[in-house]
Amino acid sequence: MPGIYKLIDVVGTSPSNFAEAVKSAIAEAGKTVHHMSWFEVIEQRGAIKDGKVAEFQVTVRIGFKIDT
Amino acid sequence: MPGIYKLIDVVGTSPSNFAEAVKSAIAEAGKTVHHMSWFEVIEQRGAIKDGKVAEFQVTVRIGFKIDT
Amino acid sequence: MPGIYKLIDVVGTSPSNFAEAVKSAIAEAGKTVHHMSWFEVIEQRGAIKDGKVAEFQVTVRIGFKIDT
Amino acid sequence: MPGIYKLIDVVGTSPSNFAEAVKSAIAEAGKTVHHMSWFEVIEQRGAIKDGKVAEFQVTVRIGFKIDT
Amino acid sequence: MPGIYKLIDVVGTSPSNFAEAVKSAIAEAGKTVHHMSWFEVIEQRGAIKDGKVAEFQVTVRIGFKIDT
Amino acid sequence: MPGIYKLIDVVGTSPSNFAEAVKSAIAEAGKTVHHMSWFEVIEQRGAIKDGKVAEFQVTVRIGFKIDT
Amino acid sequence: MPGIYKLIDVVGTSPSNFAEAVKSAIAEAGKTVHHMSWFEVIEQRGAIKDGKVAEFQVTVRIGFKIDT
Amino acid sequence: MPGIYKLIDVVGTSPSNFAEAVKSAIAEAGKTVHHMSWFEVIEQRGAIKDGKVAEFQVTVRIGFKIDT
Amino acid sequence: MPGIYKLIDVVGTSPSNFAEAVKSAIAEAGKTVHHMSWFEVIEQRGAIKDGKVAEFQVTVRIGFKIDT
Amino acid sequence: MPGIYKLIDVVGTSPSNFAEAVKSAIAEAGKTVHHMSWFEVIEQRGAIKDGKVAEFQVTVRIGFKIDT
Amino acid sequence: MPGIYKLIDVVGTSPSNFAEAVKSAIAEAGKTVHHMSWFEVIEQRGAIKDGKVAEFQVTVRIGFKIDT
Amino acid sequence: MPGIYKLIDVVGTSPSNFAEAVKSAIAEAGKTVHHMSWFEVIEQRGAIKDGKVAEFQVTVRIGFKIDT
Repeated sequence: MPGIYKLIDVVGTSPSNFAEAVKSAIAEAGKTVHHMSWFEVIEQRGAIKDGKVAEFQVTVRIGFKIDT
Repeated sequence: MPGIYKLIDVVGTSPSNFAEAVKSAIAEAGKTVHHMSWFEVIEQRGAIKDGKVAEFQVTVRIGFKIDT
Repeated sequence: MPGIYKLIDVVGTSPSNFAEAVKSAIAEAGKTVHHMSWFEVIEQRGAIKDGKVAEFQVTVRIGFKIDT
Repeated sequence: MPGIYKLIDVVGTSPSNFAEAVKSAIAEAGKTVHHMSWFEVIEQRGAIKDGKVAEFQVTVRIGFKIDT
Repeated sequence: MPGIYKLIDVVGTSPSNFAEAVKSAIAEAGKTVHHMSWFEVIEQRGAIKDGKVAEFQVTVRIGFKIDT
Repeated sequence: MPGIYKLIDVVGTSPSNFAEAVKSAIAEAGKTVHHMSWFEVIEQRGAIKDGKVAEFQVTVRIGFKIDT
Repeated sequence: MPGIYKLIDVVGTSPSNFAEAVKSAIAEAGKTVHHMSWFEVIEQRGAIKDGKVAEFQVTVRIGFKIDT
Repeated sequence: MPGIYKLIDVVGTSPSNFAEAVKSAIAEAGKTVHHMSWFEVIEQRGAIKDGKVAEFQVTVRIGFKIDT
Repeated sequence: MPGIYKLIDVVGTSPSNFAEAVKSAIAEAGKTVHHMSWFEVIEQRGAIKDGKVAEFQVTVRIGFKIDT
Repeated sequence: MPGIYKLIDVVGTSPSNFAEAVKSAIAEAGKTVHHMSWFEVIEQRGAIKDGKVAEFQVTVRIGFKIDT
Repeated sequence: MPGIYKLIDVVGTSPSNFAEAVKSAIAEAGKTVHHMSWFEVIEQRGAIKDGKVAEFQVTVRIGFKIDT
Repeated sequence: MPGIYKLIDVVGTSPSNFAEAVKSAIAEAGKTVHHMSWFEVIEQRGAIKDGKVAEFQVTVRIGFKIDT
């Protein structure tokens, strides 16, 4: 992967599971960032409501190539 | 989130995947703890039997509000 | 679990989610390693292509009993 | 410190600073736990509202002696 | 907290204490970032001059909602 | 290990060595907790008096099954 | 270092060694960021091709002053 | 900061808050160490007495220049 | 220690204490690995049965020289 | 990177610098392992003799594809 | 523990077990340092010779009160 | 390595690369400390001036034998 890459941290959320939360984070980041190349899961948390999991939250670190 | 919160660590298990293991941990904790507010995944492990994943195990740290 | 165990680190991949990536890692390891007993998730990463998650990658540490 | 101790994790909050958040966590824990002996700061977070710090949150691990 | 959040790391400084350093970091970040929701303390350092603390420095990770 | 497990952290002490400190922590915890299944060493510390080790202190995280 | 600083994470690459990879990351970041003040090495990785190191990759966290 | 620096770890205490504990640690270290340049907070703990915080304890790592 | 070394992770067990568990891990590894040079303790766990420690488990990382 | 990968930890040494130590570790590993794809630096240590650095030691985690 | 404390890291060794290695480290440190108060185990390693544990090595962080 | 060892942390600097910074730290420490045996890299940072790396800074933990 020659070149220079930048990393950003994004939190995605999903009512269903962690994989969907990851996908939503990547999809949203893709609206303003191009040439995304890889991601790393940094943290997995969630919200609880009425005794049940209401939301899965995943912090992903995304690497994308900088145009030079 | 004004107020005081307590944290407990619970291990949930599921034969299917990590999200189900998280849900089972939260559901079980909800039988004795009220006002659960959030959780954090601490560890993801599992059991193997006959060369296949037999069980997904997730340790979740659950935060709940203390009645004051 | 009396006896001696060895640990190996394997990276499994899946286009769908982390649980499938774990299963593929365990299944592949089982081709050469016997008596696998447990696993621990060490790292969760992934590849991005055209702005979408192209691959989920999970590093699992697998414990298996050594015949003595 | 001969004897056996138990550890609990409590999150205290304060609109002013971290030290006050620690004190509120200890004070609340003291309502149900006796013989508290020491604490350790595990995490320092906070809430933001209208561009300003609205709340300081401190997770403290509290050690207390068990009556035997 | 449905939606997508971004995280940025900012270092605030204060001659008085860590809480003021946190506040200055949040206030400054608020000039260009909107919808800030929470922060986490990542590191606490400081500068020493003539044998005394000259400056408290706090690295805070700030989470803010992305308009979608 | 199907089912749900809870984790508690206990500090055991011994004038002799770490293994004895672990055993005392487990034994004491067993007075109020049933179905203990495994433990993990979290921290090893100790007290010094008159230039000699006066006490070994071990923090163990104990997992026990919840009756459901 | 009075004032407010922001941190960004950049991955630099070099076919020769880690120091060159650091320099390339800083040089590239300098095209869009001003007043860079310090960096910290977060991760050191690399690519292998035909049994040899093909590329050194260094993730650096760069601190730069915000104009206020 | 050209030159060579040494690091020492000191625990400062205060009945009031963490910032005062940091200051007391730096002040005391300054009695025997010269050219102190920066510090980093390593650990924040405290003592509890009669259900209240009796003492804030901060471990600071202090960097100082060696005369060469 | 000129030359190239490989690292393997082995879990040893003992009903008595951690030192015996370490020794059993090293002894077993020595049956297939030669030129072992050092070890590092990675994790200390154990099994509990009938309210007592039934087994001490130690994960050791072993370094051994590769014949070249 | 579809497929399954295995990770091994190798310590390379060099009298000159860390980059050479990495290269020697990769070269040696390549004698028995094929399809090596990436590495990660885990630890950087060294030996001192007569007050000077006698050897740089780097522990690298190497990922290689398993033929399936 | 009002007052100021300093921390030093010492490695003790023993042919028998970790507890003896801790004791030897404390005893040796006591020859030059007074008012030692507590210790914390930082690392547990060892040397292997002829396929057997030849030496247990423990790094302990020792806290001692500074005369003021 | 029978005997007792002490650890000190030293920060070395170099305008060229990390290996030189390590060497300068060891050389300087050797002026007052004897019987140095090994080192471990704890942190790698640096200063930036005019958009370029002005200084590489390495924190090394040095182990040396105590005369007994």
